[in-house]
Amino acid sequence: MSGRTDSGTRVAEDFTATWAELAPTGLRADGGYDRFAWTPADLALRDWFRRAAARRDLALEEDGNGNLWAFWHGPEGPEGPRRVVATGSHLDSVPAGGAFDGPLGVVAGFLALDLLRRDRALPPGRSVAVACFVEEEGARFGLACLGSRLLTGAFQPARARELTDADGVTLAEAMAAAGADPSRLGADEARLAAIDAYVELHVEQGRRLVDLGAAVGIASGIWPHGRWRLRFAGEPNHAGTARLEDRRDPMLPFAEAVTAARVAAAVHGGLATVGRADVHPNATNGVAASVEAWLDARAPDDVALGAIVADVRARAGASAADHGVRIDMRQESATPAVVFDEGLRRRMAGALAPLAPQASHDAPGAPPWGGSVPEIATGAGHDAGILAARVPAGMLFVRNPTGISHSPAEAASVSDCVAGVEALARVLGELAWGLPTPSPGP
Amino acid sequence: MSGRTDSGTRVAEDFTATWAELAPTGLRADGGYDRFAWTPADLALRDWFRRAAARRDLALEEDGNGNLWAFWHGPEGPEGPRRVVATGSHLDSVPAGGAFDGPLGVVAGFLALDLLRRDRALPPGRSVAVACFVEEEGARFGLACLGSRLLTGAFQPARARELTDADGVTLAEAMAAAGADPSRLGADEARLAAIDAYVELHVEQGRRLVDLGAAVGIASGIWPHGRWRLRFAGEPNHAGTARLEDRRDPMLPFAEAVTAARVAAAVHGGLATVGRADVHPNATNGVAASVEAWLDARAPDDVALGAIVADVRARAGASAADHGVRIDMRQESATPAVVFDEGLRRRMAGALAPLAPQASHDAPGAPPWGGSVPEIATGAGHDAGILAARVPAGMLFVRNPTGISHSPAEAASVSDCVAGVEALARVLGELAWGLPTPSPGP
Repeated sequence: MSGRTDSGTRVAEDFTATWAELAPTGLRADGGYDRFAWTPADLALRDWFRRAAARRDLALEEDGNGNLWAFWHGPEGPEGPRRVVATGSHLDSVPAGGAFDGPLGVVAGFLALDLLRRDRALPPGRSVAVACFVEEEGARFGLACLGSRLLTGAFQPARARELTDADGVTLAEAMAAAGADPSRLGADEARLAAIDAYVELHVEQGRRLVDLGAAVGIASGIWPHGRWRLRFAGEPNHAGTARLEDRRDPMLPFAEAVTAARVAAAVHGGLATVGRADVHPNATNGVAASVEAWLDARAPDDVALGAIVADVRARAGASAADHGVRIDMRQESATPAVVFDEGLRRRMAGALAPLAPQASHDAPGAPPWGGSVPEIATGAGHDAGILAARVPAGMLFVRNPTGISHSPAEAASVSDCVAGVEALARVLGELAWGLPTPSPGP
Repeated sequence: MSGRTDSGTRVAEDFTATWAELAPTGLRADGGYDRFAWTPADLALRDWFRRAAARRDLALEEDGNGNLWAFWHGPEGPEGPRRVVATGSHLDSVPAGGAFDGPLGVVAGFLALDLLRRDRALPPGRSVAVACFVEEEGARFGLACLGSRLLTGAFQPARARELTDADGVTLAEAMAAAGADPSRLGADEARLAAIDAYVELHVEQGRRLVDLGAAVGIASGIWPHGRWRLRFAGEPNHAGTARLEDRRDPMLPFAEAVTAARVAAAVHGGLATVGRADVHPNATNGVAASVEAWLDARAPDDVALGAIVADVRARAGASAADHGVRIDMRQESATPAVVFDEGLRRRMAGALAPLAPQASHDAPGAPPWGGSVPEIATGAGHDAGILAARVPAGMLFVRNPTGISHSPAEAASVSDCVAGVEALARVLGELAWGLPTPSPGP
């Protein structure tokens, strides 16, 4: 027990020291973070990643999509065929985002790797990597998980180069300005083929682990979700003179869509959110010309998701017709349901069983194959969900006492973060030493 | 008739030539105008005003509030006591505004003055002025009729200097950057005391004159109106993970307020508009932290106006409570009802009677004291409404075939604009020659 405690103390010290290194970057006056891909804040975080790798003598690679990889190689070094067990997450944020969504997984990756290296060397032909993916939030260029989508070929590089931010800057321009080469964007089959498993640790973005009384959980899967853009085109007019019956006010069907989304989500057991709306010309004394809004919808399955979207479309469409407003509603992104690799989940649950001896096998949330760490589903997309289409992938969640995410209120206690690092180290250890590695070449 | 026709042709030619001078300034790609106070577009329009005055040998004055005045003086010139009959309007616009709201009244003022001067000289001690008021729309600094409010003492100069635009620039800074002296802001009692009447010509901002089949109308008054700011403060959260019951989503009570405003306006016979909303942080995949919106409400009387606002407050407040959202609703501006000077309206109706021989005295909209030009009320604020508190003031409206205002769709035919110029000339003539002027000094 004393070894465990000493180790835990060291992890806690390392965690708080590392966390302090990241804390100032991109911090806003309101306590939130603005860390958008390829901006100065992001470049500072990427430099931090490189320093964290160099400090540990890890081999740094930047793939063609700007994703960073820090490798701990087996005893024969980086040469020859090798299999990779990878962890990681992202360092970018939503606007006014929290500190944990993304960075916790990267920091935990480095600290878990430190824990493993204190004990022993990797088998020959095996590497463990910590990865940092670009533009996971899609906050700058509008497409979430951009780095992992490009890596896996799920998004085409020609289209990616033309994505623009709110100022009209393309991804290609932003990368070039940061010294990266946008012509190298695209799928990286060799890199994917070497990965035996990818396990991402992430702060939980809800209150399931709070309710279950667990510091750490295993992800079972990700709900299908999508993003729809709604454009309401009316007719600008004078607020003080245009008769109600002569108006074509786009704000009215927009309001109906907001209300309809909430009702539909409740009816069909999913989530639906309108968190972004742009009003034009946005004048206090004028009927708006148009409103552009985005619907984020998620549900446990495709049927429920489709029902939510159909309800919003019907009610917003009827209201638009009532008010002489043109409506255009189209899907901007679709992410199918992800069920994480069952074999990997079994291995993770087995590796973590000793960590929570107090939990019984029939506790709520317990994995169907036994084990003491709960399994939970999530409505949030992650790079692990994208990678799951190509490599065995899984996730660990760390308890978030507020349940709030994408906000300065996002939280995780140091002791839960340490528990997360220890859990991640156990999982990576199980995979690095437990999975078969290639025999040395002739 | 041939003289009338020649005169009309000349006015039409002058009108189209003058209109072409103004057309490029502040024009946007979408056909709307951005002409905000003290911006380069506005400064260009002010230069145009100065040139239009110089071309006519009018005496130009800029008052301490930046309002421009071009005087045609009686035979003894600008010296000595003199009484003023004034017309005018403004040259600034709302965002993406129309071409006519404001500029039509200034252009018509110059052309009406041209018409009068072709025939005869003013009596001694009498001047006719064309005025251009600053920031009538309030599009830059948020307070409509700023120039006339300052002139009449209805708004305090110390507060005015601190008004800020969307970029945080104060009015004082904007004026100083344009070479104007913000220390001179404030009431101008001497200027007001000299004014016997102010008559503003304006494009109609509704379809009453279309329905009445009249090119020109007289304003009876302006509805009371006000502007309320609504702040909905919720809690930012992740759209994919926060349970519906854990959310404090400010978008939902905001949507309720939008719907409630429309219903309340219909119920109480007024107008209510939410044309401006700012969502924070405005992220596609996040529950919003806050929504700030503005309600513009107007009604035929204060009781109806109060009822509309009370309804919105009650429904938005109930929805906010349901969703755990804090709401703050406060009045930002209040403009009491204006009934334009009855004596002036009688004189205007009398002067215009010969222009519309086809209309009968019992036509809809006919003034109660007879006459053939209809009288209509408006929900829009105007500098004439502000000046009405201090000097006899009135307005003429020119038919707008679309009924739409504050939009590129705002319109007036050349023939209706010419009819407006001729009507304004008749009214100014009636006032300049018909009102008593001071006897020459000893």
